[in-house]
Amino acid sequence: MHGGDLSDTIVALATPQGVGALAVIRVSGKRAIEIVNKVFYAKDLAQASTHTVHVGTIRDKESIIDEVVVTLFKGPKSFTTEDIVEITCHGSMYVVKQIVMLLIRQGGRLANPGEFTQRAFLNGQFDLAQAEAIADLIHADSEASRKAAMDQMRGGFSKEIKALREELVHFASMIELELDFSEEDVEFANRDHLKTLVNSILVKINLLIDSFEIGNVIKNGIPTVIAGKPNAGKSTLLNALLKEDRAIVSEIAGTTRDTIEDEINLGGIAFRFIDTAGLRETTDKIEALGVEKARKKLEEAGLILFLFDLAEEPFNEIKAEVNKLIKDQTPFLALGTKADIATSGIIKDFKTLPHSLVISALNQPDLLRLEEAILTKVNIEAFNTGSTVVTNLRHQQELVNTEEDLKRVITGIDDGITNDLLAMDIRQALHHLGEITGEITTDDLLDNIFSKFCIGK
Amino acid sequence: MHGGDLSDTIVALATPQGVGALAVIRVSGKRAIEIVNKVFYAKDLAQASTHTVHVGTIRDKESIIDEVVVTLFKGPKSFTTEDIVEITCHGSMYVVKQIVMLLIRQGGRLANPGEFTQRAFLNGQFDLAQAEAIADLIHADSEASRKAAMDQMRGGFSKEIKALREELVHFASMIELELDFSEEDVEFANRDHLKTLVNSILVKINLLIDSFEIGNVIKNGIPTVIAGKPNAGKSTLLNALLKEDRAIVSEIAGTTRDTIEDEINLGGIAFRFIDTAGLRETTDKIEALGVEKARKKLEEAGLILFLFDLAEEPFNEIKAEVNKLIKDQTPFLALGTKADIATSGIIKDFKTLPHSLVISALNQPDLLRLEEAILTKVNIEAFNTGSTVVTNLRHQQELVNTEEDLKRVITGIDDGITNDLLAMDIRQALHHLGEITGEITTDDLLDNIFSKFCIGK
Repeated sequence: MHGGDLSDTIVALATPQGVGALAVIRVSGKRAIEIVNKVFYAKDLAQASTHTVHVGTIRDKESIIDEVVVTLFKGPKSFTTEDIVEITCHGSMYVVKQIVMLLIRQGGRLANPGEFTQRAFLNGQFDLAQAEAIADLIHADSEASRKAAMDQMRGGFSKEIKALREELVHFASMIELELDFSEEDVEFANRDHLKTLVNSILVKINLLIDSFEIGNVIKNGIPTVIAGKPNAGKSTLLNALLKEDRAIVSEIAGTTRDTIEDEINLGGIAFRFIDTAGLRETTDKIEALGVEKARKKLEEAGLILFLFDLAEEPFNEIKAEVNKLIKDQTPFLALGTKADIATSGIIKDFKTLPHSLVISALNQPDLLRLEEAILTKVNIEAFNTGSTVVTNLRHQQELVNTEEDLKRVITGIDDGITNDLLAMDIRQALHHLGEITGEITTDDLLDNIFSKFCIGK
Repeated sequence: MHGGDLSDTIVALATPQGVGALAVIRVSGKRAIEIVNKVFYAKDLAQASTHTVHVGTIRDKESIIDEVVVTLFKGPKSFTTEDIVEITCHGSMYVVKQIVMLLIRQGGRLANPGEFTQRAFLNGQFDLAQAEAIADLIHADSEASRKAAMDQMRGGFSKEIKALREELVHFASMIELELDFSEEDVEFANRDHLKTLVNSILVKINLLIDSFEIGNVIKNGIPTVIAGKPNAGKSTLLNALLKEDRAIVSEIAGTTRDTIEDEINLGGIAFRFIDTAGLRETTDKIEALGVEKARKKLEEAGLILFLFDLAEEPFNEIKAEVNKLIKDQTPFLALGTKADIATSGIIKDFKTLPHSLVISALNQPDLLRLEEAILTKVNIEAFNTGSTVVTNLRHQQELVNTEEDLKRVITGIDDGITNDLLAMDIRQALHHLGEITGEITTDDLLDNIFSKFCIGK
């Protein structure tokens, strides 16, 4: 099984790789306290109370590896429900490596990706959807994605799925009972009631399936294409939009290395910018391929910011392009740039176009107006309904599977199929719903989920 | 002053930037507990004991930002001697940012680089040399550099400097006393004794100054140049040497992004590889510049691995190059490559050359033999004497300043200069020694030291 034996004691760096003030090494398992005790000098951790911290040194025989703080969580009052010892050492990758290797020599094993969370799941700390929400939370990069992950982590989504499943379980058991009494031709489960129930479940499942469109955007950001002819000011605009957000990140962390360069946060929603080659008619074959690609990306866009150089492009061409955008039905903004060197005539004409805005990327009020305009293009209500949103593709697929099973149940009832076939479809639906929260699991499923986690989680 | 007001409560991310299982946010200052209490739900931290951990949520009004573990260190039993609260949250940079900004809104201030350590220093937790050792430890990337930093952090170096200073202080006070009684022409400090003392201090200071040559290598690695003609196999060898070390790092962390690509660790010592253009006589001016640069780097090398393609290069040329290397006096190894396609005659001849070794970079036993040979070229003894080694350029410079002051004291005694001039030189020496451990500090000095720390330390 993925994650190996639960009887092992696992060890891993839990904080990000790199140089920092502190690093945290996590040890979980039956022998966690015993193993750390062998190399930690200050106090016998076996005698210490849970939820206490202890200052001391980690030693390899006579040599002091580091001065550390050790935090003790005695099972079952820990993340994994096992004994957990967290060693906070100085944030040197060399020191971390020495301590991890020392712990392994004392009988620990390097943890697999997600193995701490997997143990917590296997030991009943939370269900599978909640475990997946932890990974989502770690990768959250906007208020909407953080909130969706937090709601899921705290069990909101799981509760809904479990409620649906329980409704179905009741009827399933009735049908199974009928199978036991099949000789006697009794009907414990009224077929009309069953159909009503399944239909009401289908409505709820459909809502969840539909919510994935929003959920996907919440998790991955709204794919936003900045398009326009070469030199229309695309890069200038992108840099202007990115600036403020980056500055806040770098103020806190001292480096922008790990930020996603092409994403901005507006009103708590992430907009993921997609680069496009400048769009123009061209005879150059390779450039034509680039333009082709850009056109393709336009099709995938959730929002298009189309830039027009008002000093260069004739109005009839601009108008034609805007009409094309209207026909394509993707939300868009037509942005007129270089107004300072354009004629007042074309500016006036441009402003008559729908969804148009004249901006200067270097002008702060213009940028604020643009950000407001961008937000009006997004269905903000959908982000703030408070109702559950499916953000996980796996959940989405299980829900679609469940939907298919339940539709077969309906058709089956209508066609008057036998109880055993009906029972099979209901069991199938229960199985797919159960895989979401992990009431039903397979090794492959767990493998697939936890191997995507980072090591140390 | 750098670091701002000690009455502020400071906040910073203490673990490295990036995505991980956990991140730790540190809060230190008079109001640390009060500020965290405002946003932490579970328990009143003011009522909790020091060195305890508490599970709960961080909330911004009604919204749950994250589920966290809070660790409490009540002053003076903390790193800074102030109240410290550490918040361990999920390792999402977005979540970290939200929590840091929330704490700032409650009255915290974003910490300057090194401000936690600076507060610990100002509050008397350790001296300046020990504070600097913390930064060295964080950046340690070999056993030798880790050990040197740890020794310095635990006060070994400071103790020696303080002992030297105390010896000098005694005589300084005698001389000052003579100044008070200058009318009476008494001599409290015997000039011959003073000279003997100063000379014995000079011997010790000279040892420390000399140790910097080793200390610098310990801290920055031995500059190792891989040289040889184009296609002699330089890159192949470098990759072969780097491989194993990288594999261990990546096993632990899942990424090699943050490792220094051109450094290897052999026997606990870092070898910092310096790229060189292939060396050959050339008429191409630009290539000649590259070769010139490579020759220059050879001069800075602590060790040269000179590769010879035995299948291509005639023996007389190889021999001439090896003789040149012997004359240059930099430790070197002459490595014969491509023996599989060379004549047995040239291989036999090559083996007669001093410091020569025939290797195949793809052959594990050959690589091990090479690593052993590399280590024999290094004065391992110097790394393992157990005596104090100066690794910090600032300390080195202060020691050189002190040496100059003390030499002036000796000359002064010999020349029979007046007591006030003698006292001035001794005070100068005391000043320079005191700056090492921070008994004497200026704002500029502190600024200079702590601004190089990372934020959160």
